[in-house]
Amino acid sequence: MLTYTFSKTEGISLYQQLYQHIKGDILAGRLAAGEKLPSKRMLADHLEISVITVKNAYEQLLAEGYIYSVEKRGYYVSRVEQPLRGQEGHALPATEEEPRYVLDLVTNSISAEYFPFTVWARLMRQTILEQDKGLLRPTPYNGILLLRQAIARHLQQFRGMTVDPEQIVIGAGTEFLYHLLIQLLGRDRCYAVEEPGYSKIPRIYESNQVALERLALDHSGLSATALEKSGADVVHISPSHHYPTGIVMPITRRQELLRWAAEQEGRYILEDDYDSEFRFVGRPIPTMFSADRHEKVIYLNTFSKTIAPSIRTSYMVLPPHLLQEYRRRLSFYACTVSAFEQYTLAQFMLQGRYERHINRMRNRYRQKRDTVIQAIRTGPLAGRAEIMEQDAGLHFLMRLDTRLSDQELRRRAAEQGIRLALLSDYYRSPEKAPPHVVVVNYSGIEPEALQWGLQRLAELLEET
Amino acid sequence: MLTYTFSKTEGISLYQQLYQHIKGDILAGRLAAGEKLPSKRMLADHLEISVITVKNAYEQLLAEGYIYSVEKRGYYVSRVEQPLRGQEGHALPATEEEPRYVLDLVTNSISAEYFPFTVWARLMRQTILEQDKGLLRPTPYNGILLLRQAIARHLQQFRGMTVDPEQIVIGAGTEFLYHLLIQLLGRDRCYAVEEPGYSKIPRIYESNQVALERLALDHSGLSATALEKSGADVVHISPSHHYPTGIVMPITRRQELLRWAAEQEGRYILEDDYDSEFRFVGRPIPTMFSADRHEKVIYLNTFSKTIAPSIRTSYMVLPPHLLQEYRRRLSFYACTVSAFEQYTLAQFMLQGRYERHINRMRNRYRQKRDTVIQAIRTGPLAGRAEIMEQDAGLHFLMRLDTRLSDQELRRRAAEQGIRLALLSDYYRSPEKAPPHVVVVNYSGIEPEALQWGLQRLAELLEET
Repeated sequence: MLTYTFSKTEGISLYQQLYQHIKGDILAGRLAAGEKLPSKRMLADHLEISVITVKNAYEQLLAEGYIYSVEKRGYYVSRVEQPLRGQEGHALPATEEEPRYVLDLVTNSISAEYFPFTVWARLMRQTILEQDKGLLRPTPYNGILLLRQAIARHLQQFRGMTVDPEQIVIGAGTEFLYHLLIQLLGRDRCYAVEEPGYSKIPRIYESNQVALERLALDHSGLSATALEKSGADVVHISPSHHYPTGIVMPITRRQELLRWAAEQEGRYILEDDYDSEFRFVGRPIPTMFSADRHEKVIYLNTFSKTIAPSIRTSYMVLPPHLLQEYRRRLSFYACTVSAFEQYTLAQFMLQGRYERHINRMRNRYRQKRDTVIQAIRTGPLAGRAEIMEQDAGLHFLMRLDTRLSDQELRRRAAEQGIRLALLSDYYRSPEKAPPHVVVVNYSGIEPEALQWGLQRLAELLEET
Repeated sequence: MLTYTFSKTEGISLYQQLYQHIKGDILAGRLAAGEKLPSKRMLADHLEISVITVKNAYEQLLAEGYIYSVEKRGYYVSRVEQPLRGQEGHALPATEEEPRYVLDLVTNSISAEYFPFTVWARLMRQTILEQDKGLLRPTPYNGILLLRQAIARHLQQFRGMTVDPEQIVIGAGTEFLYHLLIQLLGRDRCYAVEEPGYSKIPRIYESNQVALERLALDHSGLSATALEKSGADVVHISPSHHYPTGIVMPITRRQELLRWAAEQEGRYILEDDYDSEFRFVGRPIPTMFSADRHEKVIYLNTFSKTIAPSIRTSYMVLPPHLLQEYRRRLSFYACTVSAFEQYTLAQFMLQGRYERHINRMRNRYRQKRDTVIQAIRTGPLAGRAEIMEQDAGLHFLMRLDTRLSDQELRRRAAEQGIRLALLSDYYRSPEKAPPHVVVVNYSGIEPEALQWGLQRLAELLEET
C-alpha cells in the first residue's frame, strides 16, 4: 500500500500533499502505467486521513491525466510519457528533428534577445488590468479598432500612407490572409508570383489549387511585359525589398505595373511589404499602395518579422471597393487573433514603443550586417566572394568563386556543420539560377561561428 | 503661440506635461488638423523650457500620430478623428451597427461573468514569468506540445478518446481549420452539411467554392441513405448535439455512417463536437472518433464555446494516415495561435481548471435553462408554447401556437425589442422548415428581460 508522511506546517492542504506524493511516484516510475491504485476508503484508512482528502487528490490526478478511472473497478495509473501511437495501435512516426548546425545562414528569424520583453510583459499585465473581462468579448471581424487605429497611424507616419482604420483587416499571419484574399479576388483568377521568391507563397496558391504563374525577374524585378504575356490577373510582389534577390523595384517599373493593373477590371497587385522596416540607406521607399489611383493595390504587412515569429499578427489594407466586397461576402469569418494580443500590440504601438523598437533593430542589424560583410571581405574568403545588394533587409547575396555545383556546395558545407541557402533554391527550375550565389541570412549569426564558418568555407573551396 | 503652465509637484516630467497639454488641445479641436506647430526652439524660448523637453514632447506626439512632420518645414497637427475616407477621398460607409434588443434569443455566446478571470489572469502572468522570451520563439506547426498533451488528456478523461498529442493540430478557430481540411481532403471532393444547420459551415464551403450538398435530417439526424444518394465524399456533422434541432444521433445511425465511410476510399466524417461539454442528462455520448476503426473520422472542437469567443483556439484530431499526409503537404503553414495563449490555456487545463470551469458552467446553464423553461411553461406563454429537445447544449426549441408567418413573427417581435431566431432561418429553403419554432439561445438571457419578453410575445400572439 502507498505510504506517505504529511507535513502539517507546510501551509498546503493534505489533499495537495497526497496529490504531490502520488504524482511524484508516477513521474518517477515508482507507480507503473496500468497499476491499480488502492480504493479511496482503503487508502484513507491506511494513511489515517479522511476519504474526502483522498477523493480530492484522486480527482486532481484524474483531471490532470495522471490516473484514469474504470467504472465500478477503480483508479489506474496513466501512461504518462505516452509513446507515439495511432488509433490502431501502430506507432506514429515522430516529427522529424532538424539537424543542428554550427553556422546557419538559412534561418532568418530575428533575434529574440533584442526584443524589449520587459516592456511587452508590462503591457500584457496592463492589458489584463485595463481590459479585464473585455478580453473575453468577441472582437470585430477585422480586429479591434484600437489596433487598427494604431496601424493606420504607423502607416501614416512610417510609410506615408493615408489609410482609414476601417480599411485594415487583421489576421493570424499573412498566410491566413492569402486564404481570405483568394476568396475575395476569386478562385477563377490567375495569380502570379516572382521567380525566384520566398517558396511559401507559391505553395499557398498551389495548395489552394488556383492557377499560378511563376514569372522571371530582370534586374529591376518583375516587368509589366512579363505579366501581360502570362495572362495573370493578380500579382504578388515585394517591391520594397525582394526576397532573395534584394531588388528594390524602381519607380518607373512600379508605374508600369500600376498601369498594367489599371488597364483591366479584375487585375490587382498584392504588395507584400514584409521587410520595409529594415532599410539601411536613404529613406523608406514609398509604397505602391500610396501611388495607386485606381484601387488596384492591396497592401500586406506582418509583425512576425519586426516583433517575433510567435506574434501571429498580420494585416492587409483593402481599397474601398474591395473593402465593401469583403464586408458583404467574408466578414462572417471571425477575427483569428486573440483580443489580448491585439490590445497589447495596440498599446505597444500607441506608446511609441514599436517605432523605437524598429529604430533600435535597424541600427543593430546594420551593425551586424557591416560586421559580417567586413569579415567576408577581409577574412579567409577574401577575393573569392563577391557581395551583392546590401542596402536593405535581413539578408544579402554572396557569389562564391568555385566550380562546385550548388548541391555539392550545400552538401560539403552541411558536412562541416554549415547550413547554406543558395539562390537556386528559390527557383522552381534551379538550372535557371545564377550558380554559387549564397543567400546570407545574417540576423542570427554568432560572431565566433562566423569566423569559424568562413574558414571552413574557404577550405572547402580550396579542395576542388 | 501655445501657452501652458507646468506643475513641478505632480511628479511627472516637464516633457510629459507638455505632451499632455498639446495632445489635449488636439483632441479638443483647439489645435486644428493641418495647423503648423511652433518650431522646437521658438516654443522652448516662449515657455522658458529646454529645447530637449520640447523635442521629447514632439517626438512622443509624433510616435502616437497626433502630429506629423514635413522635412525641412516642421510639425503639423494630424487629423485625429479621421473621417471614414477612401483613397479617392470619397467617404467609406461605416460598418453597420446591429440594433440593440431588450431580449436577444439569437446570440449564444457564453456569459463572460462566469469565467474564472482571476485564475486566467494569474496564469497569464505566470506564463509571462515562466516562459519569458520563450514566448517569442516560433511554435511548431501543430501547436506547442504542452497544450496538445493537455488536450489529449482532457479527451481521454472527458471523452474517453485515446489520442496521441501528435495527432492534434491547433488553429485559430474552427473556421480556419476547415480551410486546412479542404486542402487536406481535396477540393475535388463533394462536401455534405446538415440542413437545417449552423449557417456558417456551408458559407465556408461555398466561399471556398467546393461542391456542397445540403442533406435533410430525419428525427435521428443525417442518414447514410441520404448521404449515399447525394454522392458526397465528406460529411460534416455534430452527432453529440445538433444545432439547431438538438438531435443526439443514436448509436445505430452512427454505425451506419461509419460503415458508409469505410465502404469507399476518400470518404470522411468531420465530427464537430462543439457543444458536447454541455450535456445535462446522463453521461457524455461517446464520440464517433472513438468508435471509428478505419481512420475515417476527423474530430474537431473549440475553446470559444467553453471559455470565451475571444480565445481563438480550436483543434482537430487527425487519424494517423491523414496526419502523415498533413505533415507532408500542409505543415509548412505556421501555427496561427500565439504561443502566449497556448501556454496559458495549457496551464489552465493541466491544473484542472478547465475541468472545474466546465463543471461549474454546466451546473449554471442547467439552472438557467430550468428557470427559462419554467418561466415559459408557467408564465404568460403557458399553453401556447411547446418545448422540445432539452437535454443538452446552450439552446432548445420552442414551438409557438400562432398563425403568424415566421417573417411576421420575427418582424413584430423585433418591433417590441425582441430578437428571435427561428428554425426556418437554418434552412436554405425556409418553406421546408416546421413553422413557428423559435430557437431559444438562453445562455445570455437576463431574468428581468425574460419576464418582460414573454409578456410581449404573449400579447403579440393574441393580436392575430
